Amino acid sequence: MKFTCEKQILSNALTIVSRAIPVKTTMSILQCVLVEANAEGIRFTANDMELGIETVVEGQVEEPGIVAIEEKIFHEIVRKLPEGEIRLTVDPSLKVTIQSGRSKFNLIGRSTEEFTYLPTVERIDSIRMTQLSLKNVISQTIFSTKNDETNKMMGGELIQIDQDTFKMVSLDGHRISIRRLHLASSYAPRKVVVPAKTLDDISRILPDSAENQVSLTFTGKHMVFDFDRTTVISRLLEGEFYAIDQMLSSDFETKMTINRHEFLDCLDRTTLLVKENDKKPVILNITDEQMSLKIRSTIGSFDEEIEVEKQGKDLMIGFNPRFLLDAMRAIEDETVDFYFVNPKAPCFIKDTEDKYIYLILPVNFTVVD
Amino acid sequence: MKFTCEKQILSNALTIVSRAIPVKTTMSILQCVLVEANAEGIRFTANDMELGIETVVEGQVEEPGIVAIEEKIFHEIVRKLPEGEIRLTVDPSLKVTIQSGRSKFNLIGRSTEEFTYLPTVERIDSIRMTQLSLKNVISQTIFSTKNDETNKMMGGELIQIDQDTFKMVSLDGHRISIRRLHLASSYAPRKVVVPAKTLDDISRILPDSAENQVSLTFTGKHMVFDFDRTTVISRLLEGEFYAIDQMLSSDFETKMTINRHEFLDCLDRTTLLVKENDKKPVILNITDEQMSLKIRSTIGSFDEEIEVEKQGKDLMIGFNPRFLLDAMRAIEDETVDFYFVNPKAPCFIKDTEDKYIYLILPVNFTVVD
Repeated sequence: MKFTCEKQILSNALTIVSRAIPVKTTMSILQCVLVEANAEGIRFTANDMELGIETVVEGQVEEPGIVAIEEKIFHEIVRKLPEGEIRLTVDPSLKVTIQSGRSKFNLIGRSTEEFTYLPTVERIDSIRMTQLSLKNVISQTIFSTKNDETNKMMGGELIQIDQDTFKMVSLDGHRISIRRLHLASSYAPRKVVVPAKTLDDISRILPDSAENQVSLTFTGKHMVFDFDRTTVISRLLEGEFYAIDQMLSSDFETKMTINRHEFLDCLDRTTLLVKENDKKPVILNITDEQMSLKIRSTIGSFDEEIEVEKQGKDLMIGFNPRFLLDAMRAIEDETVDFYFVNPKAPCFIKDTEDKYIYLILPVNFTVVD
Repeated sequence: MKFTCEKQILSNALTIVSRAIPVKTTMSILQCVLVEANAEGIRFTANDMELGIETVVEGQVEEPGIVAIEEKIFHEIVRKLPEGEIRLTVDPSLKVTIQSGRSKFNLIGRSTEEFTYLPTVERIDSIRMTQLSLKNVISQTIFSTKNDETNKMMGGELIQIDQDTFKMVSLDGHRISIRRLHLASSYAPRKVVVPAKTLDDISRILPDSAENQVSLTFTGKHMVFDFDRTTVISRLLEGEFYAIDQMLSSDFETKMTINRHEFLDCLDRTTLLVKENDKKPVILNITDEQMSLKIRSTIGSFDEEIEVEKQGKDLMIGFNPRFLLDAMRAIEDETVDFYFVNPKAPCFIKDTEDKYIYLILPVNFTVVD
């Protein structure tokens, strides 16, 4: 195999596929990237069996071929080489030579026999959205997933398609995050649960483009994300996701409208006094035109007042401040509406257009001065 | 005590004194910053017994007083408060209230009885240089210090003043770094060994100013650094520093002149193949007009050629590539001169004006193809 490729292109391709290289593994082949050069270009593939990524880049291929190379050191070498062309050659004994100018690295490649290729998936009835939309919707829901051996579904997110609506849902036992997107076309109904790890990886390699598309294909066992010249294939979680519809209600006794930035900054200060394992709640006291916020912890105390608009009853209610903080960070709107029933019932944070619903369970608290 | 102070000023003051707050300690008073408000301003002091720092800032002092506050949480609170004025009050029960706008934090302060104040030092015959000069000379020598229980002097740097010459020296058993600065005035001769930890802390809090001065005062046990409204007092290491003059020689058989940036980039690539505990040397083969550089490790191999100017004999010599890398990073000159005697003798990297000397011991190597 012989090809030349721009350093920056090679480095970007390795950054993309490296998300499917496990940090620790006893199977050393999983730490390798498959490099394949042919008329189509140069293809890089990594596959940790849960998640597979491949990406194709342009280069001058002089001699087609295929080899597996340990990704980490290959990537480090590429990064440290000067800007410009990099020349990669592999001889029949699998000696890999990486050259740039008068710099020459030699590594020992691996045979590709042990490497597990990505499954072949037919792209039928794929749904499409912009890369930025998918990136956003992931970051706006992923924080309420949870790795939990006895509740495996909490480690994934529900993706549900119904006509032209794309919905993502995550929950961790204390809160639920729901986001809805409007799609440009209508699609057959679909419902899958995708591991949170995959979604995190996707959102990190997905460009911020509000113009370029990503296409999502569903099979019984896998979900495929195609964008630019990259393909990501993820295993799905097997089983039924939680029935969340019965937890949602639109009754309320108190409605509060608040400036999101002001509340966010205030919550950010609140969490200073909550160290790990210290489950002190923040207590909100909502009255006409004003919400006071208190926290008393072993470290000290914090008080702040924020102007709000209130409808309905006055209310005193306690929350884990981090859960409120996550929700405020996930919303872009300038003002946010909170709906409460009583200090024991879940609070809903939602907009009027049904773009988002964040449900948060309150916590018990004792009234402090 | 009652005062108000700008958030940014308060935050900077805490960043400065925090270098004298130990990360771990069984004496909780050491984790506190002493806050003292009086007609002079607001003084912050931290002292971990090895290193003491105090800094004074402007503020509106309404009621003088003094209190010790746990530095970490105090600092976090100040950072998270909005820009603008912060009001600090301490009541007779040592309840500390930190307020900004409608945000109010309460912490419990500590009595200052247990706090160890900084020693009083008379500023006699202090030497002066710009803040930038001191910052640079530290970063250009500190990398060859070493924490070593049996060779305690390696954990410090020699500071020697002789007339108008300021010299700093460090060594770790494999290399010596020497830097000389020209001072604006002449001073009485002095020779002290300052802990590397202090020098590292100083260089981090010292501004980059090429105009403002820092003054250095020496006592039998301490060294004092005064700059702007900050004072840093460090304990000195007791004992004699190594006699390095006898290790320096100006004989050479081979002199090589090289482009520093080119060599630096090349060494940077070389170290990719040297993982920790793998002591593979880089082998330099210096011939007329060219140096070839080779490394063979368990990971792979690397070769590069660089144009050089050579006087004297051809030479093949091996080094720990990291030592060469550190020296190349510490020098600012565009081209650098290397002086060699033979493959067993130390190599000298030095300039013609005696600003710097870096001595590096070579390592044994076996000739490879």
